[in-house]
Amino acid sequence: MKTFVHTLLVGFGDCDPAGIVYYPNFFRWFDATAHVMFAAVGCDWRGTKRERNWIVGPIVDAHAAFRAPATHGDTLEVHASVSQWSAKSFRVDYRIVRGPVLIAEGWEVRIVAEPHPDDPSRIRALPIPDAFRALFD
Amino acid sequence: MKTFVHTLLVGFGDCDPAGIVYYPNFFRWFDATAHVMFAAVGCDWRGTKRERNWIVGPIVDAHAAFRAPATHGDTLEVHASVSQWSAKSFRVDYRIVRGPVLIAEGWEVRIVAEPHPDDPSRIRALPIPDAFRALFD
Amino acid sequence: MKTFVHTLLVGFGDCDPAGIVYYPNFFRWFDATAHVMFAAVGCDWRGTKRERNWIVGPIVDAHAAFRAPATHGDTLEVHASVSQWSAKSFRVDYRIVRGPVLIAEGWEVRIVAEPHPDDPSRIRALPIPDAFRALFD
Amino acid sequence: MKTFVHTLLVGFGDCDPAGIVYYPNFFRWFDATAHVMFAAVGCDWRGTKRERNWIVGPIVDAHAAFRAPATHGDTLEVHASVSQWSAKSFRVDYRIVRGPVLIAEGWEVRIVAEPHPDDPSRIRALPIPDAFRALFD
Repeated sequence: MKTFVHTLLVGFGDCDPAGIVYYPNFFRWFDATAHVMFAAVGCDWRGTKRERNWIVGPIVDAHAAFRAPATHGDTLEVHASVSQWSAKSFRVDYRIVRGPVLIAEGWEVRIVAEPHPDDPSRIRALPIPDAFRALFD
Repeated sequence: MKTFVHTLLVGFGDCDPAGIVYYPNFFRWFDATAHVMFAAVGCDWRGTKRERNWIVGPIVDAHAAFRAPATHGDTLEVHASVSQWSAKSFRVDYRIVRGPVLIAEGWEVRIVAEPHPDDPSRIRALPIPDAFRALFD
Repeated sequence: MKTFVHTLLVGFGDCDPAGIVYYPNFFRWFDATAHVMFAAVGCDWRGTKRERNWIVGPIVDAHAAFRAPATHGDTLEVHASVSQWSAKSFRVDYRIVRGPVLIAEGWEVRIVAEPHPDDPSRIRALPIPDAFRALFD
Repeated sequence: MKTFVHTLLVGFGDCDPAGIVYYPNFFRWFDATAHVMFAAVGCDWRGTKRERNWIVGPIVDAHAAFRAPATHGDTLEVHASVSQWSAKSFRVDYRIVRGPVLIAEGWEVRIVAEPHPDDPSRIRALPIPDAFRALFD
């Protein structure tokens, strides 16, 4: 199971009046790391749409548990890995750490989609393409 | 079980290159609605900290499932209600709708805290105060 | 000169560790109000692109001056009006108020664009269409 | 004149339905770089408040001009330097580049403040402390 890492600096504006990270930002960082992961395996959103007509990654479900506070000036690492494959979706697990301290952990369920043949403004889920899954082995 | 409603207009900038709401914003709107709810029962974050030394609402856990896309120009209603009380935490359930269409649903687990007696820069969870819980009955 | 108004509630997460609105959010609210204005005159981003092949509103320049702090729980009104027309751009003026108190004021310069004929992934500015300008008179 | 650099990766969620950076994010990145600069000279927001009772950096005014689009996956550098000192404020200039391409440039006017002696929930501008200014020479 490959792990992908995205490192970021917590900004002043990422924190709320309690002085700690405003929690929706953890999901922004999960998502940013998913895109780092897709790009790392050669499947960035734009190129993959153009070249393979796959829309990589619409989200179905997301969860996070907040283990310790983080604040502005902290450098955080987000670790991501695909932990599970289903017929039409896959699950990405995340851990956000500051050095040895676990700050947050969670997961997302995502799909691979294509433009809907009846209405290109909509999408529909594809069976996970083998060629996509193979990139993560 | 009281339900609290927050209405909002989805902005252009709340959407991503796929043209739909960028998912962490749904958590921003969950949180905004939690604060609308706290204020509605007379427990806004600032006043409650000053008057009762309670810190209302640090987050433990959050989940959302995305049922249908929403886009800029949509008016959304976020419905929130406290669905469960535990010794030291409570759960808030959310439904985001556009008219009859369910867009997203989810929940958060939150606590009521006080400044830590040994270190006021930290907090510790309180047993849920009866006076807090009573506000939601 | 028509004025367009967008009303919003400042969220907890819109504020920073100083307890006041994190300033880039004022630009988010300028932009949100520009889109309210475009929609109000029948020129929302999506429909106008589809029906007239105009891309309404890419930004050239933006400025804001911050006059008084605002905080979570405040209800703010953003007032917008087109204050100036040039050959290929127009200027939108903004005032953000909380009741009688001026919180911020500023402006944006925007264009009307079309997909570039040589490369549809790029855009180029149009001379401001008379039909667009007339909507604001 | 010292220059400070902050490097960042543009996220999918930093972009709007036009597929390019949503402009208020440029101001978020200006501000993030201001905080990198303050920390680099030993004046981070939290420590400076605690140790010197200075509040570093409330914003008065901000401007940006957008020179070229940027998109998700781009690595951007934000260059910041203090370009001007006044009796009670200072100006920070910014340039955001992607390699040799200028993406955006702008400035902020900021102050150094202290809690207001009559009401600690408010602040008032200090004459720029010599000890603060000296850090940037």
